[in-house]
Amino acid sequence: MTATRTIIKTQVGIVGGGPAGLMLSHLLAKTGIENLVVEMRDHETIRNTHRAGILEAQAVKMLVESGVNGRVLTHGDEHAGIDLRFNGESHPLDFTELVDATVTLYAQNEVFVDLAAARELDGGDVRFSAEVTELLDLETDTPKFRFTDAEGTEFEVHCDVLVGADGSRSFCRRQIPETNRQDFKIEYPFAWFGILTEAPKSSPELIYANSPHGFALISQRSETVQRMYFQCDPNENVDDWSQDRIWTELQRRVDGPDNFQLKTGNIFDKSVLKFRSFVREPLSHGRLFLIGDAGHTVPPTGAKGLNLAFADVKVLFEALDSFYATKNDTLLHGYSDKALKRVWKAQNFSYWMTSMLHTPVGGDPFMAKRALGELETVTSSRFGQQYLAESYTGWPHG
Amino acid sequence: MTATRTIIKTQVGIVGGGPAGLMLSHLLAKTGIENLVVEMRDHETIRNTHRAGILEAQAVKMLVESGVNGRVLTHGDEHAGIDLRFNGESHPLDFTELVDATVTLYAQNEVFVDLAAARELDGGDVRFSAEVTELLDLETDTPKFRFTDAEGTEFEVHCDVLVGADGSRSFCRRQIPETNRQDFKIEYPFAWFGILTEAPKSSPELIYANSPHGFALISQRSETVQRMYFQCDPNENVDDWSQDRIWTELQRRVDGPDNFQLKTGNIFDKSVLKFRSFVREPLSHGRLFLIGDAGHTVPPTGAKGLNLAFADVKVLFEALDSFYATKNDTLLHGYSDKALKRVWKAQNFSYWMTSMLHTPVGGDPFMAKRALGELETVTSSRFGQQYLAESYTGWPHG
Repeated sequence: MTATRTIIKTQVGIVGGGPAGLMLSHLLAKTGIENLVVEMRDHETIRNTHRAGILEAQAVKMLVESGVNGRVLTHGDEHAGIDLRFNGESHPLDFTELVDATVTLYAQNEVFVDLAAARELDGGDVRFSAEVTELLDLETDTPKFRFTDAEGTEFEVHCDVLVGADGSRSFCRRQIPETNRQDFKIEYPFAWFGILTEAPKSSPELIYANSPHGFALISQRSETVQRMYFQCDPNENVDDWSQDRIWTELQRRVDGPDNFQLKTGNIFDKSVLKFRSFVREPLSHGRLFLIGDAGHTVPPTGAKGLNLAFADVKVLFEALDSFYATKNDTLLHGYSDKALKRVWKAQNFSYWMTSMLHTPVGGDPFMAKRALGELETVTSSRFGQQYLAESYTGWPHG
Repeated sequence: MTATRTIIKTQVGIVGGGPAGLMLSHLLAKTGIENLVVEMRDHETIRNTHRAGILEAQAVKMLVESGVNGRVLTHGDEHAGIDLRFNGESHPLDFTELVDATVTLYAQNEVFVDLAAARELDGGDVRFSAEVTELLDLETDTPKFRFTDAEGTEFEVHCDVLVGADGSRSFCRRQIPETNRQDFKIEYPFAWFGILTEAPKSSPELIYANSPHGFALISQRSETVQRMYFQCDPNENVDDWSQDRIWTELQRRVDGPDNFQLKTGNIFDKSVLKFRSFVREPLSHGRLFLIGDAGHTVPPTGAKGLNLAFADVKVLFEALDSFYATKNDTLLHGYSDKALKRVWKAQNFSYWMTSMLHTPVGGDPFMAKRALGELETVTSSRFGQQYLAESYTGWPHG
């Protein structure tokens, strides 16, 4: 049977229209490199998928300087520190004073909305609700992929470079032959119980709390809506948790001699976030390149997910820019090694924050005390505070 | 039967005549507080028990300023840094430049020799080859203990305060009722294979090497004798290791593109050091106080064992000094909490160095890569280098 596929020719084919794929598409378009983005979900689903977002200053700069727009500056909430709370005591870290840097709270779906709007404004070719079914000829100079749009029309895209930006369940990642890939992962024996509540802010800065009852994170969303999490069993059922029970659990994780009290309100969203650490190596195969969650997943404790995706985008964009300017593919060949260096630093940071703040596996008493010893060491040392602050606010882009 | 025991009255009874017990005895004597030290082993056995010693500047200062003698300055080897080696590359940390501090290599048995000589010179009462058989009345103001000397003569010591300085297999520790104590520990699934070799120095500074074949530590003892270790199975048999096999194993753990070569020589001592992390809480019971290894054991990776013992001595000495000067026992009551704060920082540091440098349990590939990510983060950040250097050279005594 002869295929009745419409052929599309472009320079860079991008599978996945989340923040990573759209940011790359935007940067490429700005420099005159033609590209096409194909995304499985529809625009509205992504826009309504609430995921927290803590942006490093460098990620904010990428959005603003590339001309996406300035909403992150006007609608984002700049934070100059965090509070590490343990033994019932507050230990504020002032990022501005320690390392002259800040982070910005700006939800990931807002980043998506901004990027999608920018692509639309610039006439970018972004196909939503389109399912990629096959990748072809990855090891040649003309990789291809096939997709079917919402109407059932079939397309075949011919390009120079194919980018897998299709998230943690990446289809692209699975198309690399098993002999050319290695996966590194750990599963955690706990999860986060997350809520959204109609309440005023309990604290101006994020509180990361280590308590005998487990970890809690008190974060902010707006003046009237707050996001909070507490460490739970991965199989926890949200229906077993009444509002009263949730507030009792959250409050006892921040209890202390300072009588710190959470400001409560109606809880209108409850969910359990399972988390894991995952890295695929290498991040490329022939002319296929993986960016963001398609290549690596971090637990949320380090707030590195979106930032790492943007760091990948920056490295890959520079490699593609050089490739099209000079026809030299040295930087493309170096993409995986260069990106992985930062990925493993971020994996370590996320693991560090997780193991220092959570009640350990099986509640091992030595490891729980060790974590408190580490918190004491970090918070009582200016170098320790600076080391943590620098990692949290983001190492310089390479 | 009526006991035919000789009664000895003193102010502070010290069980254990290693560096911790003798240092405390020395400081007490200098300030006019009467004390007696009872040690199970004989002088010669301790003098010939070779254990590496890396002394923090503060430990050196304690030896010198308390008037023990200045041999640590003339015979010790001051080191201004270490080399963290991974991915076959050298990453020197210069402690002087980073945190304005150094450490001094001076074997623990030399510390013992100095302290024993100082006690003898000052007419201190130190009984070697004497076995403590019983502790009595710990919860009263007149604790007592019984011991039998080398001739079989039995003694009963009456004192105000009893100190357990009797090492990692502490008899004193076991006399605290089970309902009043908690032990925290982890066992490691590996050990260190240690050698002494007649060879010149391979490097001016200690090399801590993370390699795909496991950890190695290249250290120095003198211009002509060197101490080296490599991570091994805890059940390794030293007889299975020929000199050639040992050198091949050590060399491959420091191999790299820089072609770094170990300087080899005759190996005249081989041993397997099992190691673990252990903490007893609290470090006191009534009028019994535990110091050094009697209260806590650290793996050797952080080089904190003797330093932590001396830090305990300092805290307990200040409490005893205050107790005898004022008859107020507030500081004595605070000893355990104050000492434990540093103990847990040192436990964390030792665990950190161990997990960052050794091939992890079961060789988990994610954790091995994570450790390399951590080494990369630390060595590429000035704050990271300073944080590690400050911990290694020693936090200020509280």
